[in-house]
Amino acid sequence: MAVSELFVKKLGVINVGVPLFYNDLLKQGVEVVNLEWKPPAGGNLQLIAALDQLDKAQDKVAEGNAEAFKRMNEAQPYLEGMGQAKEVIPGMGERMLLHAGPALGWARMSGPVRGAVLGAILYEGWADTPEEAEKMAASEGLITYSPCHEHDTVGPMAGLVSPSMPVFIIKNRTHGNVAYATMNEGLGKVLRFGAYSPEVLSRLKWMEQELYPTLKKGIELSGGIDLKSIIAQMLHMGDEAHNRNKSGTSMFFRIMAPLLLKTEVKRDVVRRCLEFIDSNDHFFLNLSMPTCKAVLDTAVGIPNSTLVTTMTRNGTDFGIRVAGTGRQWFTAPANYVEGLLFPGFTANDCNPDLGDSAITETSGIGGFAMAAAPAIAQFVGGSAADALQFSKQMYLITQGANSMYTIPALDFKGTATGIDVRKVIDLGILPIINTGIAHKEAGVGQVGAGLVRPPMECFEKALLALASNIH
Amino acid sequence: MAVSELFVKKLGVINVGVPLFYNDLLKQGVEVVNLEWKPPAGGNLQLIAALDQLDKAQDKVAEGNAEAFKRMNEAQPYLEGMGQAKEVIPGMGERMLLHAGPALGWARMSGPVRGAVLGAILYEGWADTPEEAEKMAASEGLITYSPCHEHDTVGPMAGLVSPSMPVFIIKNRTHGNVAYATMNEGLGKVLRFGAYSPEVLSRLKWMEQELYPTLKKGIELSGGIDLKSIIAQMLHMGDEAHNRNKSGTSMFFRIMAPLLLKTEVKRDVVRRCLEFIDSNDHFFLNLSMPTCKAVLDTAVGIPNSTLVTTMTRNGTDFGIRVAGTGRQWFTAPANYVEGLLFPGFTANDCNPDLGDSAITETSGIGGFAMAAAPAIAQFVGGSAADALQFSKQMYLITQGANSMYTIPALDFKGTATGIDVRKVIDLGILPIINTGIAHKEAGVGQVGAGLVRPPMECFEKALLALASNIH
Repeated sequence: MAVSELFVKKLGVINVGVPLFYNDLLKQGVEVVNLEWKPPAGGNLQLIAALDQLDKAQDKVAEGNAEAFKRMNEAQPYLEGMGQAKEVIPGMGERMLLHAGPALGWARMSGPVRGAVLGAILYEGWADTPEEAEKMAASEGLITYSPCHEHDTVGPMAGLVSPSMPVFIIKNRTHGNVAYATMNEGLGKVLRFGAYSPEVLSRLKWMEQELYPTLKKGIELSGGIDLKSIIAQMLHMGDEAHNRNKSGTSMFFRIMAPLLLKTEVKRDVVRRCLEFIDSNDHFFLNLSMPTCKAVLDTAVGIPNSTLVTTMTRNGTDFGIRVAGTGRQWFTAPANYVEGLLFPGFTANDCNPDLGDSAITETSGIGGFAMAAAPAIAQFVGGSAADALQFSKQMYLITQGANSMYTIPALDFKGTATGIDVRKVIDLGILPIINTGIAHKEAGVGQVGAGLVRPPMECFEKALLALASNIH
Repeated sequence: MAVSELFVKKLGVINVGVPLFYNDLLKQGVEVVNLEWKPPAGGNLQLIAALDQLDKAQDKVAEGNAEAFKRMNEAQPYLEGMGQAKEVIPGMGERMLLHAGPALGWARMSGPVRGAVLGAILYEGWADTPEEAEKMAASEGLITYSPCHEHDTVGPMAGLVSPSMPVFIIKNRTHGNVAYATMNEGLGKVLRFGAYSPEVLSRLKWMEQELYPTLKKGIELSGGIDLKSIIAQMLHMGDEAHNRNKSGTSMFFRIMAPLLLKTEVKRDVVRRCLEFIDSNDHFFLNLSMPTCKAVLDTAVGIPNSTLVTTMTRNGTDFGIRVAGTGRQWFTAPANYVEGLLFPGFTANDCNPDLGDSAITETSGIGGFAMAAAPAIAQFVGGSAADALQFSKQMYLITQGANSMYTIPALDFKGTATGIDVRKVIDLGILPIINTGIAHKEAGVGQVGAGLVRPPMECFEKALLALASNIH
C-alpha cells in the first residue's frame, strides 16, 4: 500500500485481547473489530508448563490419541439382551445402589439423587416407608453407593440402578466390552428426578414384571440391534440423541413391534408395552447413552492419550476421566445449567448439573451434534444458527470428525469427536452439553432444559495428571 | 465521495443484465459483480399486458389470494377411514382407470403409465394375459381413462387407481372436502412404475385382502389421525414428505401398531401388516399426498385468485390448475428430470416427469421444504446449502409462509406456500420439484431421483386465462 493512501482512506482498528480499548473506541464511534485473543491456558504458568511437557512428548500423545480415536470409530455396540442388574452388572453388590456421576455419599447428595435413593430402597423392599428408607440411606454401611460409570453402566439424571432393576445389555462387537442402562421411565414424576411416590414405584414394578420380560424376548429374536446405525440415522432425522430422541424411539419401536408379535407374550401385554414406548419420545435415550459408554470404554487406559472417556455429574460434582490416566477421576463442583425454565419455576428451583447423559457429548453427539437437531435449540433457548455454531466450535477441541455420525447441515461432516484435554486448556473452550434441569428438591421433576459447560478445573487437574504420566 | 478519491481508489464494476460485458471484464481480470437482471415476463409483451391487467385488478386478486391462502392454512385433513375406490371415489366408473397428471389416452401414454394400465386390467381380472390387456387398453371405449385429480384423488408416478383398489379416505375437518389415495406398494417392481409381473399383482391382491381390512379397522379405532400435525413434525425430523417419508412412516407405524392390537384381527396378520409398513420408508407418501390434495382443493374456484391448486404430470404432459380458473387445465410437454441415476442407467433410460406427487410442492412441502431435509439434497445430487437455497427461493413466488409447516434451519419460518402465477411469470422463477425418475419402459422401476421444474408454458397459459377472467 502506498503511504499516500493512508491519508485518503478511512482507517479501521483491530483490537487484540483486552476489550477495554475496544469498548472505548466503540463509544467514540470508531470502526473497530475485536479479536478475542487470550493467552494459552489463560496464562496459568503451571498449565503452560504441562502443555509444554505434553508437547515434547507429542509423538507419543499423537499415537495414543490416534489409537483412542480409531477404537471409538471402530466400536460396534449392539443391543444384545436384557437382564437384572444383580445378575449381569459386574461388581453389583447385594445392597448396592449405583448413581450418576463421580462417587459421593449420602451427606453430599443433592435433593433429586437422595429422592431416587429413597425410591430405590422402597422399590427393593429394603424399607417400607420413606422415613425408614431415609434412616437406612443415611446410615454408615447399610447401603453401598457406587458410580454407575465404575460398573460399565450409565444412567440419566440421578442414574439410580438397584439390584432388581432390569437393564439393557449392549455389547461392542468389535472389542467385546459391554455397557448397561436401565429402561427410560418417561417424563413427569419419575425416579431419575428423585420422585418416589407409589405411582413411581408401581410403574417401576410393572417395568420389571411385564415390560422387561417382553422386551427381553423380542431382543433375543432380533439377533442384536445395531445401535450406532440407529444413532447415525437419528442425526439425519432431527435428533441429537441426548435431549431429542424422537426418531430414535420411533425406529426402535418399528424394530420391536413385529419382533414382540413373534414371541409367545400375550397380545394385550405386547400392546401395553408398545403403548408405553410410544408414550415416551425419550425411550431411546437409555439406549443412546450405553452405546456411547460402550464406544468410549474402548479407549480407557490407552497410554498417553489425552482424549476424554467420561464426562458426568452427580448433582454436586462434575467428574471427567481421560484415556491416558485410566480410571482416575478429576472432579470439581458442578455448574448450574443456563436455559429455559418451565412456567412457574425460577433459577432458585434448579439443581446443579446432574446425570451420566453427558456421555453423549463425550462420544460426539448430544450438544456436539446440535446442528443436526435445530429443534433442540428452541427447547434450550437458542436459534438454529446457535446450534450450528456450537457444533462447529467443538471441532476446535476434538481429535477429529466421527466416521459414522454425520451432520446434514454441515454437508455431512462427521461430528466433532474425541475431546482433547490439551485443546480445551490451550484454547479455553469447554465442551458444550445440552441437558435437562432437575428441581433441587426430590421428586418435583424436570423444571427446564438448557446448556452447560463442565468446570475448567476438571480439565486442569486432568492435564497436570497427564503431563506427569507420560510413558 | 470526494472526486479525488476516484483517482486513488480501485474501481469496481457492476454489470446489469446481459452477461456479455460481465464475461469480457472477467477475462481481463477486472473486479466485477453481475446482477442477473431480466425484464419482467422475459420481455414477452402479451404476458406483460396480462400482468398489467391483473395489476389493475390488484385489490380483487389480493382478496382472492388472501382467501385461498387462509383456507389452505385452516384446512385440517384427518385420515378417517378406508374403502374400495368403486365404493368411495366420486365418479369412479365400472371400467374406469384413474391415472396421474392431466387427461391423456392410451395413444399418448408413456411406458410406465401403459405398464401400470396393463397391471390394473390384470389385477381387476378384466383380461387374463398382458396381450389381452393391451388390446383392451388400446381399444376405443372398453376402458375409460380419467385423471385422479378430477376425482379428488392423487397417485404417485403412474398413479393408477382401479375400481377394486383400497384407498385412504382423508377428510378436511374444517371445510368438509375429502381426498383419496391408494396405499404405497414399496420400492422395486411396483405398479406405479409400470410393473405388472405376477409378484406385483399378488402383492396388490394381498394389500386388498389382508392389509386393507386390517388398517381399516385400526383407523376406525383411532377416531381420525391428524395428518397435518404429522407432516409438521416430519419437517423437524429430516423429511420433506415427498422423497423422504421415513419419520412420517415411523410416526404412522407408532400410531397404528397399538391400534391394530386392539382389533380382532389375527396376531400373525397384524404382524405381517406391520412388517409390510416397516419395510417401506415411503409408506407415508400416500398419506402426505392426499393431505396436500385436501388442503389445496379448498381453494378451487376462488374468484380472481392467482394461486396454483394443482401441479401434476402424466409422463407426457405437465398440467397445472389455478384457484381463479377452477377446474381448467393448463398443460405443456413434461420436462426430463435432472439428477442422480442409479448405477447402470443413463439419461436415455429416463421417462419424462411423472406423477401426482408434485401436489406436495404445490402445498408448500416436498422441494419447497428441502431445507428441512438436507439428506434429500444428497439423494437428488446437491448439497445441504443447495437445499437451503431452493427453499429460500420459493418465497419469491409464493403468497406467504405456511402457518403449520416450519423449517428448523430457517429458524422455524413457515414453508413457502401458495404459488402465485403472477410472480412465477414476473420473475421467471419456476417452482422446484424433487422427484423420482421412472424408467421409460414399463416395469423397470425407478432409475434415479432429481430435480425438475414445470414448463413455463403452463404458467403463461394460466396467466392469460386469469387476466381474461377477472370478475
